Amino acid sequence: MSFMNLKDIEERELVPGFRARMVHTDSMTLAYWEVDAGAALTKHTHTHEQVVNVIQGVFELTVGDETRRIRPGDVVTIASNVAHAGIAVTDCRILDIFHPVREDYR
Amino acid sequence: MSFMNLKDIEERELVPGFRARMVHTDSMTLAYWEVDAGAALTKHTHTHEQVVNVIQGVFELTVGDETRRIRPGDVVTIASNVAHAGIAVTDCRILDIFHPVREDYR
Repeated sequence: MSFMNLKDIEERELVPGFRARMVHTDSMTLAYWEVDAGAALTKHTHTHEQVVNVIQGVFELTVGDETRRIRPGDVVTIASNVAHAGIAVTDCRILDIFHPVREDYR
Repeated sequence: MSFMNLKDIEERELVPGFRARMVHTDSMTLAYWEVDAGAALTKHTHTHEQVVNVIQGVFELTVGDETRRIRPGDVVTIASNVAHAGIAVTDCRILDIFHPVREDYR
């Protein structure tokens, strides 16, 4: 199936306040998040490369030792195994892209 | 460099009416396009997997033998070596994600 619409994909709350619709290809996972203001992800790592895109709202992201408030137009690349954490400053829409596929998100 | 903003990335017109800002990671390329209404991409293929996200506007995309008008919320996955073509129905903002890196876009 090439063509899809996000509204046809079931939303799942994987972490309290973090609800995602997932698209998996052969080599990548795209996670379309809706995040509640105040929801937080504790520091974690994974082998997957990740790219964070803020679509709407403000999110405070820590990558390694650097913390920034990111907004639409900001793009953050997180290399394999680099620790990261975050908290939603406002309600947010975020698109995360991972390589390879996040098998744990299937 | 983990944190970046699209306004700090040089925009390049790779095809008439298609201007992109590119972000490359070790394994992926993200192309943030601004497309003029009426601009067209002729049918082409590449070995890279591709995922198309319409951020704004309407784009008519053909993948294989199927043509659809796609809008925000639509996501299109294009497998390796599948022919595709398109034309912007309105001015558009599109995010294309490729694996592996588009070396021709560096």
